[in-house]
Amino acid sequence: MEHRRRLRDIGIKIGRFETGNLNSITDIEGVKVGHKTIIEDLHNGNSIRTGVTAILPHSDNLFKEKVIGSSYVINGFGKTTGTIQIEELGVIESPIMLTNTLSVPAVTEGTIRYLLDHNDDIGSVTGTVNVVVGECNDGFLNDIRGMHVRPKHAIEAIISASKGVVEGSVGAGTGMSCLGFKGGIGTSSRVITVDGTKYTLGVLVLSNYGKKEDILMPESNKRVYKSSEGVDLPDGSIMIIIGTDAPFNERQLQRISKRAAFGLSRTGSSAAHGSGDIVISFSTAHRIRHYPSKLRQTYSFFVEDGPIISDFFEMAVEAVEEAIWNSLCKATTIVGQKGNRRDEFPYHLFK
Amino acid sequence: MEHRRRLRDIGIKIGRFETGNLNSITDIEGVKVGHKTIIEDLHNGNSIRTGVTAILPHSDNLFKEKVIGSSYVINGFGKTTGTIQIEELGVIESPIMLTNTLSVPAVTEGTIRYLLDHNDDIGSVTGTVNVVVGECNDGFLNDIRGMHVRPKHAIEAIISASKGVVEGSVGAGTGMSCLGFKGGIGTSSRVITVDGTKYTLGVLVLSNYGKKEDILMPESNKRVYKSSEGVDLPDGSIMIIIGTDAPFNERQLQRISKRAAFGLSRTGSSAAHGSGDIVISFSTAHRIRHYPSKLRQTYSFFVEDGPIISDFFEMAVEAVEEAIWNSLCKATTIVGQKGNRRDEFPYHLFK
Amino acid sequence: MEHRRRLRDIGIKIGRFETGNLNSITDIEGVKVGHKTIIEDLHNGNSIRTGVTAILPHSDNLFKEKVIGSSYVINGFGKTTGTIQIEELGVIESPIMLTNTLSVPAVTEGTIRYLLDHNDDIGSVTGTVNVVVGECNDGFLNDIRGMHVRPKHAIEAIISASKGVVEGSVGAGTGMSCLGFKGGIGTSSRVITVDGTKYTLGVLVLSNYGKKEDILMPESNKRVYKSSEGVDLPDGSIMIIIGTDAPFNERQLQRISKRAAFGLSRTGSSAAHGSGDIVISFSTAHRIRHYPSKLRQTYSFFVEDGPIISDFFEMAVEAVEEAIWNSLCKATTIVGQKGNRRDEFPYHLFK
Amino acid sequence: MEHRRRLRDIGIKIGRFETGNLNSITDIEGVKVGHKTIIEDLHNGNSIRTGVTAILPHSDNLFKEKVIGSSYVINGFGKTTGTIQIEELGVIESPIMLTNTLSVPAVTEGTIRYLLDHNDDIGSVTGTVNVVVGECNDGFLNDIRGMHVRPKHAIEAIISASKGVVEGSVGAGTGMSCLGFKGGIGTSSRVITVDGTKYTLGVLVLSNYGKKEDILMPESNKRVYKSSEGVDLPDGSIMIIIGTDAPFNERQLQRISKRAAFGLSRTGSSAAHGSGDIVISFSTAHRIRHYPSKLRQTYSFFVEDGPIISDFFEMAVEAVEEAIWNSLCKATTIVGQKGNRRDEFPYHLFK
Repeated sequence: MEHRRRLRDIGIKIGRFETGNLNSITDIEGVKVGHKTIIEDLHNGNSIRTGVTAILPHSDNLFKEKVIGSSYVINGFGKTTGTIQIEELGVIESPIMLTNTLSVPAVTEGTIRYLLDHNDDIGSVTGTVNVVVGECNDGFLNDIRGMHVRPKHAIEAIISASKGVVEGSVGAGTGMSCLGFKGGIGTSSRVITVDGTKYTLGVLVLSNYGKKEDILMPESNKRVYKSSEGVDLPDGSIMIIIGTDAPFNERQLQRISKRAAFGLSRTGSSAAHGSGDIVISFSTAHRIRHYPSKLRQTYSFFVEDGPIISDFFEMAVEAVEEAIWNSLCKATTIVGQKGNRRDEFPYHLFK
Repeated sequence: MEHRRRLRDIGIKIGRFETGNLNSITDIEGVKVGHKTIIEDLHNGNSIRTGVTAILPHSDNLFKEKVIGSSYVINGFGKTTGTIQIEELGVIESPIMLTNTLSVPAVTEGTIRYLLDHNDDIGSVTGTVNVVVGECNDGFLNDIRGMHVRPKHAIEAIISASKGVVEGSVGAGTGMSCLGFKGGIGTSSRVITVDGTKYTLGVLVLSNYGKKEDILMPESNKRVYKSSEGVDLPDGSIMIIIGTDAPFNERQLQRISKRAAFGLSRTGSSAAHGSGDIVISFSTAHRIRHYPSKLRQTYSFFVEDGPIISDFFEMAVEAVEEAIWNSLCKATTIVGQKGNRRDEFPYHLFK
Repeated sequence: MEHRRRLRDIGIKIGRFETGNLNSITDIEGVKVGHKTIIEDLHNGNSIRTGVTAILPHSDNLFKEKVIGSSYVINGFGKTTGTIQIEELGVIESPIMLTNTLSVPAVTEGTIRYLLDHNDDIGSVTGTVNVVVGECNDGFLNDIRGMHVRPKHAIEAIISASKGVVEGSVGAGTGMSCLGFKGGIGTSSRVITVDGTKYTLGVLVLSNYGKKEDILMPESNKRVYKSSEGVDLPDGSIMIIIGTDAPFNERQLQRISKRAAFGLSRTGSSAAHGSGDIVISFSTAHRIRHYPSKLRQTYSFFVEDGPIISDFFEMAVEAVEEAIWNSLCKATTIVGQKGNRRDEFPYHLFK
Repeated sequence: MEHRRRLRDIGIKIGRFETGNLNSITDIEGVKVGHKTIIEDLHNGNSIRTGVTAILPHSDNLFKEKVIGSSYVINGFGKTTGTIQIEELGVIESPIMLTNTLSVPAVTEGTIRYLLDHNDDIGSVTGTVNVVVGECNDGFLNDIRGMHVRPKHAIEAIISASKGVVEGSVGAGTGMSCLGFKGGIGTSSRVITVDGTKYTLGVLVLSNYGKKEDILMPESNKRVYKSSEGVDLPDGSIMIIIGTDAPFNERQLQRISKRAAFGLSRTGSSAAHGSGDIVISFSTAHRIRHYPSKLRQTYSFFVEDGPIISDFFEMAVEAVEEAIWNSLCKATTIVGQKGNRRDEFPYHLFK
């Protein structure tokens, strides 16, 4: 997808905060992202255009050293798994996985197997493990009924994780559509300096929602399409992953997560009925040991009575909006299942 | 405030749906709105710039014939009362009242007294009554510590309710500020025809949030201010009331309520920490009798697997955005407590 | 397990309401339950003691004719999947499946495959399907790391569903432990006559929580053990499925679901930290078509201002308590993984 | 009420944990409780039997030094105010006030006035203040329509707060009924030693729910009444306040709060429809300054992967059950509105 440029390469900036070096969720120390892209044309005429994306909150053993996490459901027409325990305990203990809707179980199983392989104690001398997997429906371009993602693909995505995030029609984003064009993976980040220390908030999205007529162009706010052109799916979904190295607790993270709806709105979405619009967030500032050495753990969190958390709210709004646009700007045209075609977003619309 | 024009009078439309006749929440059959505005300069140098606004979901006895209702908390730094029971039972049984933060108890008490006067059975032969009161902090312009709103003012607001909604610096909006300018009461509506029947969704807001640098101008999406000009409060709040005559149940109403965040976002808000951004919604399509005549009640609701509810989501997004702009467009300059001044929104910014 | 008796066979009744004919969740017209029990001793020394249980809210196509549903999390240290969409849309569109914790993905995949086989439209001309799978951890008796439940086992459980519910060490309950003894599947029901019509509320539990010292004996309320005997797991979980043919909506069902905690409490549980104590509920009174023939659907629900819903609350409390005791009374001793043994509950404790 | 004895004075213990010295919520360092009891027979024949109770999480300026807090709604047919902000921010910044349902606004206003008097900055140079007030309906014995509680009574309750908690027909409990007998204020506590340090969990209830036939006697678990005796209200409510000096955060506190339902259940309640059964909890282990001196605050919380939090769950279950029984054991017969009479609980039922 080298011929495709990101939103800032086109000359458009979202918001007032600076981005990190990579303008990516991997600007957060330790965060890595991996993809497994599966593209194949089957003899029976079906087309596989799907995959898996793994976001690693840090690069050590996530089960043994959990991160504080939260989730938020913007619209719950979705099959994301793992959020009940995140809400109860306030921690994430697995890679955050993304795939197509009907492949959630395969990816969950693969991720469990990966974690069992790296943790002899799970299910033997300690409890089990909570895996979080989000999804969107790529059935327009992908033979989703074929359930072609297998557990091994989840493991491949995890193993391949690195700091360089490929965006667009890749990994879980391979078959996704957004605002009537090709969508998929996008990322962005924002940085802020507080008391001499730089903090980063990063976002990764799997975009798969909306019709052309929903589009609100960045900066100009123009609606560039008057009516739907027929092949658009009425609904669709978006998964939004928000990470930060700033010290926030699970309640504060959920407050930040709720602002994802604000960024999503500015691209033109009103979270249509059929959307699974779900946010998963984490902070790497503290690690929660599976086998704590003490009965009490010490934390340091940002106080809330001051401008800091509001700045992070705004950073989240900006980064979500830009990550979505990056997914559109980087995605390449895909022709898939039943010859269905989804075109890459035409840059001339930015003018 | 006759010299002030609404957003559409300036030539700007929000979204693709048509408005109702009045472009007001009172386009819904039976809905009325009343204000009590309290403006007085006290001998001790304090200035009263506050009031009460009452929204009546219908014009009969609300306790005896309740409406289906819901609530949603965008950001909960607020003191709205009455939502616990709305969430448990899915009904609203009182006028929806708005006032300043420290006057919530006075307005609650006044509304209770009004309801006791009209219902001999409350607290004697039947249970009590749940009153819903929302609030924003008008302390910049109003002597909020003086708690000058009294129970009688709530009753006056209820009694004065009519179809013609005065907007801007009136009722609960008298002392409110929004996006660095004078805010307050605004309203808007959208209509849709389904199967030959016209349905209306209406919104009323009490706007009191944001700084000038947050402003995203409608249509152009421009940020017209670069940095805050000092007198802006960092936070603030918004109350958003959504009504409809369309047949939705309490769960569906909450889904619609969540879309208020999408409309709010498009004006530039990211729901800062200090905001109490709270949505109350109701449908007038069914009435729930306090003394039901049968053990089962029959309802008819819109099915969700189709485009209808997504249209209402979009109508809510549009009407919330336009109601906020109407509050800004109609509000007039107020000078109040300690000589603090909040200017009316200058129309030249729309150009 | 013919030698084992149910609680009432021992002479103990819980509560004041009558049971249905079978004292089972299958007293509800159309509801069926199926099990797949997997018991095998592997050459590598590991022992399989696990399985799958399927609860069918009705016996027709559940995807095409959904039931109103709800969920409630008593304690969220659990991996139940499918609840996000139940909460958003208020419907259940799949069999309700139970298994061990690490087999949730296999059972989800099997159930998806079953539903795809019976619905050509899923993932092709309509959206996907939301499968609900609950779990408890049977790792004390079962080689849970082996992930021996496969997708086909889920299908076998669904296909085998019938009105006669086998209880105890069967299906998903094969390897479960409860209150220091062998737990597993239990069921119970309550009936009430309203206005000449009989309504049934039924409960099925998968019990897997607690220590011997937690036990509160039914009727006598005695604690029969003073201290834990070492092999007890500190935590554990319970899945509670509540069905009814009474006309309640999704909000009312959730209110009923919350009462499951009251029944659970009376057995001695205080929902220990490590529990995934999760409730799934449904009403068969209305069916929600996937392809509705009209834009509006008519419902009839019980009114709430009267004693009816409180009676159902009490029926739920009673039936949950009795279903748990039935799981203990019917379960048979199992020796499994690593030679671990869990004894069947000794009847003499009731004396 | 000196002639009335507490449950332990009668020889009955609930549970396995030790109580604190006073077996009271005031066993927590710094916690105080005050009552204002209002009993008067009016010339118009109405009877005032009501009051206000104030729980102070600590004895310093609560607005300036907030405590971590949480809330949980067991059943939301109630008018408790202040919980939206507690959930958003995780702190309590006012005394926790209890009164009758229609006096919530008067008590809120009185508490605001008290806080304004002690904090010149509220509503002038800082924001406003969030007051939490819970309630039950005492209309059977009290002229609740008369709204006889005034703001000054709230202030009197706060000022009178001390370590010695009077129980029974006092303060907010003056006119309350429970399980067909006279209810009202009860308290209990539990202590645990962790790593050499003693921690206390204390509960205060305002009991006002249930019928005689609901009663489950402590220890014996007997139902001592077969059918309701007519004057019993069908519904009613309970407010449950849980405090601790143990270091838990707001999420952990909410987990503890949910266990209140388990204690409530064991007295025989199934949380009838008309109940407002609401829990407010707080930890005094950390104070959150309104004007923080640093941008980050350091906390130390108990880790969850271990037995500690489960012990606190059980302590909460025990203390809630015992606090309810103490309210019944200590309450004295009251004759009130319209000559209605509620008898004190007869001790012979314990035999």
